[in-house]
Amino acid sequence: MDVDFQKGGGLVPAIIQDEQNGDVLMLGFMNAEALRETQRASEVMFFSRSRNKLWKKGETSGHVLRVREIRLDCDADALLVRVEAVGPGVCHEGYRSCFFRAIEAGGEARLVAERTFSPDKVYGQEKAR
Amino acid sequence: MDVDFQKGGGLVPAIIQDEQNGDVLMLGFMNAEALRETQRASEVMFFSRSRNKLWKKGETSGHVLRVREIRLDCDADALLVRVEAVGPGVCHEGYRSCFFRAIEAGGEARLVAERTFSPDKVYGQEKAR
Repeated sequence: MDVDFQKGGGLVPAIIQDEQNGDVLMLGFMNAEALRETQRASEVMFFSRSRNKLWKKGETSGHVLRVREIRLDCDADALLVRVEAVGPGVCHEGYRSCFFRAIEAGGEARLVAERTFSPDKVYGQEKAR
Repeated sequence: MDVDFQKGGGLVPAIIQDEQNGDVLMLGFMNAEALRETQRASEVMFFSRSRNKLWKKGETSGHVLRVREIRLDCDADALLVRVEAVGPGVCHEGYRSCFFRAIEAGGEARLVAERTFSPDKVYGQEKAR
């Protein structure tokens, strides 16, 4: 079963889901190399669109994502990676999930989660992830 | 809070999650118009990259996705849409979720779900969604 990297210009979206409770933690993109490396190491690696390079989740924070299962969708152009998330949260802003805000039709955003760690302590000044 | 459509060339990935049990049902893309229409109607509309046009989920099958909440990630470039999914499944291949296969490092795929409806009966010959 081949993953279709073509449609997204070499990248596929990879949804990261907590295997234990089903929470969606974040979304990143993978190219073929990131997926291979993720499968090899059983820890999630992404391709960063802004920095244009591979990026190991948790390389700064230690909050790595241990892969339990990788699912592929019907069109083979999106991945669902079910993980054990090491540490108090995956978000560089200090939340368990990057999806910590809800948006309303008017554009207002509202917090739907509480901070679980201090991003300054974990990431220092550089705010890498 | 503005959604960043720029980074993805006018599109953002939208993860569809069953609000009741946390299952990830599918992933689609939205442009600004699809998001506005989704918010207006409280039913999910995508932008189809292959057909290059707006696409109402469930327009053929009646399996619409009723929006309960829309979350935005920290970078404002991905959406998590929590829904009530009407009908036996969202996938045009007859499954509850489009992520019905797991992939192994060797490339083999393995079914992790069972069919919940007959795609031929629901979609007829056209296999639209």
